[in-house]
Amino acid sequence: MPSTAQITAAVAEYVSLLGTGTGKEIGALYNESATLEDPVGGEIRIGRADITAFYSALDSVTTAAELITVRVTGDSAAFQMRVVTTMPDQVITIEPIDVMTFDDEGLITSMRAYWGPADVATTQGQ
Amino acid sequence: MPSTAQITAAVAEYVSLLGTGTGKEIGALYNESATLEDPVGGEIRIGRADITAFYSALDSVTTAAELITVRVTGDSAAFQMRVVTTMPDQVITIEPIDVMTFDDEGLITSMRAYWGPADVATTQGQ
Repeated sequence: MPSTAQITAAVAEYVSLLGTGTGKEIGALYNESATLEDPVGGEIRIGRADITAFYSALDSVTTAAELITVRVTGDSAAFQMRVVTTMPDQVITIEPIDVMTFDDEGLITSMRAYWGPADVATTQGQ
Repeated sequence: MPSTAQITAAVAEYVSLLGTGTGKEIGALYNESATLEDPVGGEIRIGRADITAFYSALDSVTTAAELITVRVTGDSAAFQMRVVTTMPDQVITIEPIDVMTFDDEGLITSMRAYWGPADVATTQGQ
């Protein structure tokens, strides 16, 4: 089982790369056969290639991400973060609660993101 | 599937009853065959009777609970709350992130609580 320190570091790196990394770099944090469900109840993506494609959609937009709080237990973490995406004409802010599990190497084996339409704040750019 | 409003109300009632209700009242928020894992990675309690017993252990202590943030998607909610338990000689504060699923009647079908030893703050009473 991964240690609390491994999991805490992996979550911090994930949030950091959401802001500054590429889809490929974020995908590399995932186990080869990981699953991703974002938001929970939506499509489940399976495997690193599909997950990398999911994050690569963000490569062309400016995203800032900040960790708000994290809880670690066993091989799992739950955390809330703030993700701000700046588009040419609007700024979108979401503060999802994500749940992840990890393998012995600290790679993400599953990710489930809890947020709904009511949690998306949009402001118009100038 | 329960509505977002049903789920939001159920979470609010759960947090409220943690502070003011009995184990039996809290157990009544759960589906007859629900599961409870608190913390995640620990023992899984199955069924309303076992879940009621879990909460009834708190009947004799003074507990205050406050909802910090909640996210609802599909039949699920993730939320963070602050739980303050006042014992004769100490005050214990935990701010777990809980994940719940709900049935069509808005009863809880599963609860998983994310918190670890590092998230427990204890202060000595006078």
